[in-house]
Amino acid sequence: MDKPFLQVARPEDVQGLLRRFGSLEREDISIADAAFRVVAESVRAEEDIPGFDRSTMDGFAVHASDTFGATESAPALLEVAGEVVMGELPGFELVQGTALRIWTGGALPAGSDAVVMVEQTQELDRRTVEVFKAVAPFENVVRKGEDFQAGEILLRAGHRLRPQDLGLLAAMGRQSIEVYRKPSVAIISSGDEIVPIDQTPPPGCMRDVNRYTLSAMVQEARAQPVWIGIAGDSLKLVSSLIAQGLQAADTVVISGGSSMGSRDLVIEALAGFDDSEILVHGVSISPGKPLILARVGSQAVFGLPGHPISAMVCFEHFVVPLLRGLEGEDALRPFRRTTIHAFLSRNVPSREGRTDYVRVRLESAGDRIVAVPLFGKSGMISSMVRAHGFVRIDADCEGLYRGDQVTVHLFSDWTGDRLEKEHLSGHEAAGGGAGDLFETPQQELLSRV
Amino acid sequence: MDKPFLQVARPEDVQGLLRRFGSLEREDISIADAAFRVVAESVRAEEDIPGFDRSTMDGFAVHASDTFGATESAPALLEVAGEVVMGELPGFELVQGTALRIWTGGALPAGSDAVVMVEQTQELDRRTVEVFKAVAPFENVVRKGEDFQAGEILLRAGHRLRPQDLGLLAAMGRQSIEVYRKPSVAIISSGDEIVPIDQTPPPGCMRDVNRYTLSAMVQEARAQPVWIGIAGDSLKLVSSLIAQGLQAADTVVISGGSSMGSRDLVIEALAGFDDSEILVHGVSISPGKPLILARVGSQAVFGLPGHPISAMVCFEHFVVPLLRGLEGEDALRPFRRTTIHAFLSRNVPSREGRTDYVRVRLESAGDRIVAVPLFGKSGMISSMVRAHGFVRIDADCEGLYRGDQVTVHLFSDWTGDRLEKEHLSGHEAAGGGAGDLFETPQQELLSRV
Repeated sequence: MDKPFLQVARPEDVQGLLRRFGSLEREDISIADAAFRVVAESVRAEEDIPGFDRSTMDGFAVHASDTFGATESAPALLEVAGEVVMGELPGFELVQGTALRIWTGGALPAGSDAVVMVEQTQELDRRTVEVFKAVAPFENVVRKGEDFQAGEILLRAGHRLRPQDLGLLAAMGRQSIEVYRKPSVAIISSGDEIVPIDQTPPPGCMRDVNRYTLSAMVQEARAQPVWIGIAGDSLKLVSSLIAQGLQAADTVVISGGSSMGSRDLVIEALAGFDDSEILVHGVSISPGKPLILARVGSQAVFGLPGHPISAMVCFEHFVVPLLRGLEGEDALRPFRRTTIHAFLSRNVPSREGRTDYVRVRLESAGDRIVAVPLFGKSGMISSMVRAHGFVRIDADCEGLYRGDQVTVHLFSDWTGDRLEKEHLSGHEAAGGGAGDLFETPQQELLSRV
Repeated sequence: MDKPFLQVARPEDVQGLLRRFGSLEREDISIADAAFRVVAESVRAEEDIPGFDRSTMDGFAVHASDTFGATESAPALLEVAGEVVMGELPGFELVQGTALRIWTGGALPAGSDAVVMVEQTQELDRRTVEVFKAVAPFENVVRKGEDFQAGEILLRAGHRLRPQDLGLLAAMGRQSIEVYRKPSVAIISSGDEIVPIDQTPPPGCMRDVNRYTLSAMVQEARAQPVWIGIAGDSLKLVSSLIAQGLQAADTVVISGGSSMGSRDLVIEALAGFDDSEILVHGVSISPGKPLILARVGSQAVFGLPGHPISAMVCFEHFVVPLLRGLEGEDALRPFRRTTIHAFLSRNVPSREGRTDYVRVRLESAGDRIVAVPLFGKSGMISSMVRAHGFVRIDADCEGLYRGDQVTVHLFSDWTGDRLEKEHLSGHEAAGGGAGDLFETPQQELLSRV
């Protein structure tokens, strides 16, 4: 019953290993479905945007030179030659000394090279307008090709599409786009003590938590969860469900094996597949140390600890980076979390050589936000539910002290409760950072150097 | 052609007005579908979790008192009475002087009150084990009800469900949960100059950008976009499409009316509905000033500026808060964005009394991250595409200076490119904040006070 020797890897080395799994195939999809997908092709502008000189104001299209020297007391007097119809290119050339009514977004007529804002004018009658301020050539105008020029690279392969990127593709008339396929993740829970949630666990058993936490994390990582099942502690069952998972999805995550015996079972099952290789067995983070990473054929299989918290920490730091790589991104790391600054309520010891993720609950203390470490035993889900986020203690740090100002990585992009209302000013005063966009004056300005 | 007087509202007042739209009805859904939904009921623990004293280690269940005084040189000698079977409650009481092999997650037998880690033991033979270290009562044990006790409130109504919250519901055996219905948003583009993306815009026209940017933003806000169509600049068309939108979705967003004439058309159409009210016409932010907010019956209708950038800024600051409120959250504000600290590359003037959102591109400069303001005219999509995020300049601030350290609110929770690799240390050195979780030593520790 000796513990097997774990070849404990550094987290950055595990992330480095993920690169060998490459990326998934490409597919062409409608831009209406492409939000937050990763482009597989570099996209170049096929035409100038805008395709014509366009007004950015309501006012009058003019020859700029006709307004030179115009002031309140000595306005320029121009003849109004008509009005630009929205959605049409004016069919005539604006002659010197005349002006054309124009709306925001309207096309400038040939000859004109600037727009005078309506606020700088007064119409004397339907045919005559006074201009009180000179405009420079191309003032209040977006010139043809000023937004994008034909041939310019707009988006590079490997870029995950944000809303504005889709707007850009729309502006270029791109109806479809080549993206990497969205990865799918087979989820397996294991352990004789795990029962489905619709069963009342017999004494000594517990309901399957990881199926639900990990499925939600797969969705959060913009991938597709595929539920396989619960494997009892037998080599045959574990092997069979992993094989099903490899068929059903791009990668497999089996949690459980929280006890040494069932960990060994996962290792034994993985080693039993043709062309398989155990890449990692143990990583220097806490919680999450007993991570298993294997290659079966070209696919990655993760053995996560059975403890829900350890499983979540491993998922974020190793499975999410794999998913980003499979989807064609360069960055093999977790997505960024929103952060908040807070002061530690007590000392937190740590062991050198190990990266610790300490769950904290944020609380009010006068005008400060205090981070209270939650030292729930790792089998307990409550400390994750009660926590707002985590504080990371790096491998080369022996611990943090009471009163230290720390960055808390939030579990969500909302806190949505009293904390958000009461303490954002405290938080910002404590050193800047993320926060509500309206309630805190001067929050953006942290220091002048 | 005078500009109509805008009753310009403060952004916080507009957000305050949103509260009157209340929340949507409730529905019962499977917890497998409930990730990131908002709970409509407070959830109490119906039973103790765990339901039995559970080991957190592989080792031996013992009477703690049998180990008192045990050391390396004077180990306690215990008789091994057998092994705990995973998923079963041991059927006998552990008598003093004996120990039972147990695995992580296993149930302690009656009589035993602690677990000795396997590393602290040596088996002399199958029947005898030496214990080298004393354990305190309940050491390495999660006690019955220690995670959650029956009757305890676990989740409050209005809480948006994170992965761990679903795990908690699973642990409690909850198969379904009452949540607020997910809001839907009808999207309309307007303007005679707007054509669908599958058409080549005639001279003076442009393709519909806002349909795609706003649909993606609706999805990002965890709501459901419903595309209605493009309305030309006629009162009848605008009214008819808004009416369709009110039928099809919980709220309506009509963009366009970038020119004064079409803004007036939206106002006129909204005023023409029975039981309607214009609540806001103009807000003191830039870009985004010409925002319209109206009530039609019990529904909110937003008139967003036609400029893609202005439309996006308005959507984030006013439509997203409405959607959060409709879904039962208390916080009527945007979701938090991830942030990064950077130094401004140049002065940025601002007008007092107006909140400015300045788009910035992040660039490398030695060991620092520099935020370069992009002053694209607001009709241009390129400045949004080229930007990584925005810097906010508060209403009571007259501007920021070159070299000021500012918080950049990122457009995404990834940057995914060289910036992420090259500059995280620079960023952290510049004052802490969000960042990669592995590459920067000591990033969490900002200051000691």
